[in-house]
This record gives sequence, C-alpha cells and structure tokens, in this order.
Amino acid sequence: MALIVQKYGGTSVGSLERIENVAEKVIDWRARGHHVVVVVSAMSGETDRLIGLAKGITPRPPPRELDVLLATGEQVTIALLCIALEKRGCPARSYTGGQVRILTDNAFNKARIQDIEASAMRADLDAGRVVVVAGFQGVDEDGNITTLGRGGSDTTGVALAAALKADECQIYTDVDGVYTTDPRVVPDARRLDRITFEEMLEMASLGSKVLQIRSVEFAGKHNVPIRVLSTFQEGPGTLITFEEALEAEQMEKELISGIAFNRDEAKLTVSGVPDRPGIAFSILGPISDANIEVDMIVQNIGRDGTTDFTFTVHRNDYERALEILREHAAQLGAREVSGDHKIAKLSLVGIGMRSHAGVASRMFQALAKENINIRMISTSEIKISVVVDEKYLELGVRALHEAFELDQAA
Amino acid sequence: MALIVQKYGGTSVGSLERIENVAEKVIDWRARGHHVVVVVSAMSGETDRLIGLAKGITPRPPPRELDVLLATGEQVTIALLCIALEKRGCPARSYTGGQVRILTDNAFNKARIQDIEASAMRADLDAGRVVVVAGFQGVDEDGNITTLGRGGSDTTGVALAAALKADECQIYTDVDGVYTTDPRVVPDARRLDRITFEEMLEMASLGSKVLQIRSVEFAGKHNVPIRVLSTFQEGPGTLITFEEALEAEQMEKELISGIAFNRDEAKLTVSGVPDRPGIAFSILGPISDANIEVDMIVQNIGRDGTTDFTFTVHRNDYERALEILREHAAQLGAREVSGDHKIAKLSLVGIGMRSHAGVASRMFQALAKENINIRMISTSEIKISVVVDEKYLELGVRALHEAFELDQAA
Repeated sequence: MALIVQKYGGTSVGSLERIENVAEKVIDWRARGHHVVVVVSAMSGETDRLIGLAKGITPRPPPRELDVLLATGEQVTIALLCIALEKRGCPARSYTGGQVRILTDNAFNKARIQDIEASAMRADLDAGRVVVVAGFQGVDEDGNITTLGRGGSDTTGVALAAALKADECQIYTDVDGVYTTDPRVVPDARRLDRITFEEMLEMASLGSKVLQIRSVEFAGKHNVPIRVLSTFQEGPGTLITFEEALEAEQMEKELISGIAFNRDEAKLTVSGVPDRPGIAFSILGPISDANIEVDMIVQNIGRDGTTDFTFTVHRNDYERALEILREHAAQLGAREVSGDHKIAKLSLVGIGMRSHAGVASRMFQALAKENINIRMISTSEIKISVVVDEKYLELGVRALHEAFELDQAA
Repeated sequence: MALIVQKYGGTSVGSLERIENVAEKVIDWRARGHHVVVVVSAMSGETDRLIGLAKGITPRPPPRELDVLLATGEQVTIALLCIALEKRGCPARSYTGGQVRILTDNAFNKARIQDIEASAMRADLDAGRVVVVAGFQGVDEDGNITTLGRGGSDTTGVALAAALKADECQIYTDVDGVYTTDPRVVPDARRLDRITFEEMLEMASLGSKVLQIRSVEFAGKHNVPIRVLSTFQEGPGTLITFEEALEAEQMEKELISGIAFNRDEAKLTVSGVPDRPGIAFSILGPISDANIEVDMIVQNIGRDGTTDFTFTVHRNDYERALEILREHAAQLGAREVSGDHKIAKLSLVGIGMRSHAGVASRMFQALAKENINIRMISTSEIKISVVVDEKYLELGVRALHEAFELDQAA
C-alpha cells in the first residue's frame, strides 16, 4: 500500500464528464489499496474567464484581489470532484489551499510555498477518505489568499507529496510521458521510461512544456519521484527520479535522453567593444534593469583589444533590448550593435554525456552533414545548446535524433 | 460620521457595469465621511449556474461539498468590487466568510451564524479602507465552509451590523422600499417611510419578499436598524426600526401599515373528528413527521361531540398532506377529509391595531361589500389574516387598501 499524490490539470477536469472520468481513475487507484491525495486545477478556460472579468474593470487589477478571484477556479473543481467521488460511494473531502493550510509568502500572483500543515489530510487518509486539494493556491501568514502563478498546481502536487512523504507524485496531463523530442517534429520520437530531475530541468527550461520547471526543482530538492502520465490513455508514463536510482537499475545509461528546442528566442550582438574587465556588466546591466531575462551568453576571446559579445533574450523582448543596446553603444565604445530574431536553439540533454567524450563533436558533425551553420554554442555539464537559423530547426532536430539513435531504447 | 453596513443583492451586482455602479455608490457614502462595510451576493445567475454543475453530477450533492462550491459565487463578487473600488483610488479589502471569521454551526446549506470576529474589519476601517465581505457564507469550528441558505446575504449584512455596532444596515435591492401592498395589484400602494420589526416580520412571512425573514428577526433581536433602498434609483427607502423610536417621532401612529397576501397556500380540513384532548396532535403529528410546514390552524368549538379541524400548508405540499390525512382518517375517527388549493390569504398588518378596536369588523365589512366570502380567520396581536377563494385575491387587496385609506400618509 502506497501513498500517492495525483495532480490533474485544467484539460483533465475541463467538463463534468471529464471530472467524472477523473473520479473513476482515483477510485481505481484506491481499489488497489493505495491512499490517494488529489490536486486539481481550475476547469480549462475558467482562469481565463475570471481574468477576463477582472480586466473588464481595469487592465491592472490589484494583485491581492486578483488572487481572491482566481482562487475560486480551483475551489469549484475540488467541490465537483468530491461530489463525483461521493456519488460513487467513495468518501472524499475537499480542501482549499487555506483549509489545508498551505502557507506561502505574501507575493500575490506568484507566491512561494513555505510550509504545509499535513495533519488534517493525514487524519482523512487514515479514516479512508480521498483528499482533494485545490492546486495553485495558499494563504499567507495573515490569512490572505495567495496564488502560485500559472502552472502552480504542479508545484502544489509536488509540495503536498513532499509534506506527506508520498511514494509518488503523479502528474496527469494530455501527453503520456516525456519524449526524446517533440513527436510533431520527429514522428519516431520515443517515450522515455525514466529521466533524471536534472535532465528534466534542462528539457523543461528548453521548451518541453510537460511540467512547470518550478515543480521539478521542488521535487528534486525534496526527493519526490514524479511520474508524468496521460489522463486520457493508459500507460506507465515517464518517471522522473534520481540519478542514483537510475544507475542502480540500468547497467548501461543512455548517452542522451532527448533533444529540446526553442524558437522563442532572439540573439543580440555588441561588436568591437573594448576587451576590458567589467564590459559584460556594462552591456547586461541596462538589459537587466529593464527586467529583460537573458538566456545564453557567449563571449569569445578578444582580438586587437576588442571583443564581440552575444546573448539571447525572449523574442518578445528583442526590440526593446536592441533599443537599449543602441542607446548605450557609444558609451560602451562599441563598433556595432546587431541582432537576429529568426533563430532557433537546439539542445542535446543527457546525464550520460558527462562520462562520454565526443558527444559534442558527434553533434556538430551531424549538423554539418546537413549544411546547418552553427551561430552560437553554449554547454553545461549535461547539455549542449546551439543556435541555428530558424529555418533549420526541424531538419536539425531530426538529424540529431537519428545521429544519437534516440528512436531505439538503450 | 457613522458606520454603515450596506448589502447589495445579486441583481445589484449582476454585471461588471453594475458592480462599477455599486463602487460609485459606496464611494459616495465614504465621501460623506462614513465608514462603510459592504456585503455582496453572488452575481445574479451565478448560484444557479453552480448548482447546475453539481446537479449535473448527481441530484443530491453532498451538503459539505455543495457549500464549498456555492461559496465561490460571493468570493468572485468581493474580488471584483474591490478591484472596481481600488481602480477609483478607494482603498478596499475583501473578506470571505472564513477570513472575517463568521463562525456558524455545521448545518451545511442552512448554517446559522454563531459569532463574528470584528477586529480585522475594524482595523481596516480605522485605516480608511472599505471592507467588502462575502455574504451567505461562514465557517464552522473545524474550518469547514458553510452557507446560510438562499437569501443568507441579508442575514450576513445584519449580523455584521450587529457585531460592528453599526448605525444602520442598508439593504439595497431592486425595489425602493416597503410598500403598503404590492404595487402590481394596487397601483396606489404607497412606500412606507418607517415600519416596525414586528410589522415587517408579518409582512415578510406573508409574502412581501423584500427581505429574508431571518434577517429581520436577527435585526430585531440585536437592535439593528435596517433601511431598504433601491440600487437603481435615489430615495430614502424604508427604515425598519423599533416601536419606541417610531412612537417618539410620530404623534399619531398609522393604524395599519400594509396588506400582505399569499397565493402559495392550500387548506385542508378534517371534519367530524372526536372532540377530545390530543386530537390536534393526532392530526398534525403525521404531517409534521413528513416535514410539511403548517401555517394557519383553525379549530372551532365542537358540536355533537365532534369538531372540524382546518389548517393550511404550502401549495406544493398539498397533495402529500391530503394523502397522509386520508391514510390516518379512519384511525382518527374522522367523518371526512377535504381540501382546497385554490385559496389565497390576505392579511392586515399594523402595530396600531393593538390599541384600536374595530379593525377586524372594518376589514370584514370591506370584504362583505364586495361579496367576498371568508373561509378562515386567524389573528395575532398585530395581524388579521383571512383565507378567501383565490379568484378574489386582487379584489380583496384593493378593497382593503381603500377601506383603510393606505394610499394616504397618516
């Protein structure tokens, strides 16, 4: 008998029929002898409807009141799911974030969980009840309602699993697991049985939108195994777990877990700036002051006392970043400011590459074979990212998927 | 400077435009130097929408979860009203029932308020904020969300006014006050400037649906003056207050305040039952066991050792009550069980009738003049009710309104 936390997203509870379907799934797990805690999101479309109401009054609703408004979305779902469970004779009890007491800081609209009071939920589980908790919400120390920001229901699920020392946190979504890459780009893409937290973090941050990155960080930090599953089809999903657990079970680790990609970025280059200490800060300071987030940063060795500095930002911030750089170009002593928003980033991700030489060269060779010019390169311990022209995105992903034989299980 | 509690019902907050209109009204009162606490209902239609969702799963949703669901309706309104207030530069803070801590018993769907924690609201008022509270809801001792039942927002308003020792509880609705009778029946019906709690109780229970009867009881018990006002037009409304206050101000009290009527009732008669102690209980016991509420009860003196027993019930309960009586008729030794559901009840209400003889005879004379046969009569200290054939309802109301010159102020 295990204690399982299950999280169902907005699409999974998007209609009464789907809520009844979730009730059936929960009852199935319970029938197998497990204790079940369920975390639900608002029914799909509901959060947008509520935001629409607030924005109908003012484009900038006060954050505290927006959270009071948005928190009703999940509250509706917990009640409906409990009604569906009890209709089937399954004892259940709903909890808002405040009722559990999911304590957060007071950063309305993007609060962070600080503590979870588990005793009431435990008493319900011991009494044989299914516990249904509203995702995405909590209360601060003064009892104000807070929300965790979009996608926060994943974080609620993982945090509850940590607080209850659950055996597994199951994230039900509309895909049946984590894939080696996007199946829409590579039809041969393969579902991974397992992936490490670190790899998942790199995959998530690079555009595999299966899980909120915050929830993966949280799970890794608190040692909560996560399983990504489909609400709509049966299957084992993908288990996100620890490296040690993986190594114990798999004699030969897969070299590469997957290929992530992202076409939401744009790159900017400041050429011919004096090659002196502090230049990186002089360039990025004003960008950061404008609240623009920077992803990749590359600076090559200088030549003739000057150097070229390149970085990427979200495509939405491209125009503003370019403007800021041009304003500061003279002051920086730069020869030129240039940019390109028609780029794409491809990344190989894999814990295995740490102990295997030659992954990078194999990657560059595969791209060269297709005549794909690499514009930027940046590496971390378990990831190699390259920037290429956007038009090569699909071709590049397919070339890499084939070169590393990702369609075949290791 | 006064402390005013204002309650706005579902129609008054039925759209974003109307919520913004309420915000303007609240700001007006605040600009006149008053402290304002606002209680709001769910936007009109919202509670029915939520009940529809629950009933879409099962006709009998578990009461606890139904309350979790329904409480979201008012929570949406408090957030939207605060957003509208803050947009206009008016500091405001929303409270759910649980956040105020409106403590109730644990009778889900029809909970009763036991205590209200006023300190947080007071601190907000002292800080110059408008306090916006979700009507209709509270929490029990274990932190479960409860609702007070339909119309409970009036009760919330009055209870908050009592807890805060407010100077007045203003109930905003879609009519501009309490009338001598329904203006749809008597176009000359006149808005009353004042009415006592006792009169209002009789008027409300007899079908003048301006205020929930529970809230009037509560107000009377806690000495909270209520004013009924229109959200949509200016005017002084009707003040519901204490007899002493009235008498101090009005030298000559009006004899009759108004005429209430009700066509939702049906009458049942058990004829020729033995005239012995306990017979009333033998007849009404089974009715009460079936949870049927009885309104008027009339039993005349016996004749030949038997008597006739007549009472009225809600028209919806008529068939079932008739069935129960027939089942028990033999056992009761009754000669006959009969009934009529095409009846109407007319009632004269007025504190003044206590000290004036002849009100009843003047009433019966007015009805006789129109050839209206009286089927039942029952009286209390400030009310005389008669049952007549339903077809005479309008004629009877008009005749009484004229006979007591209710179109003219006293």
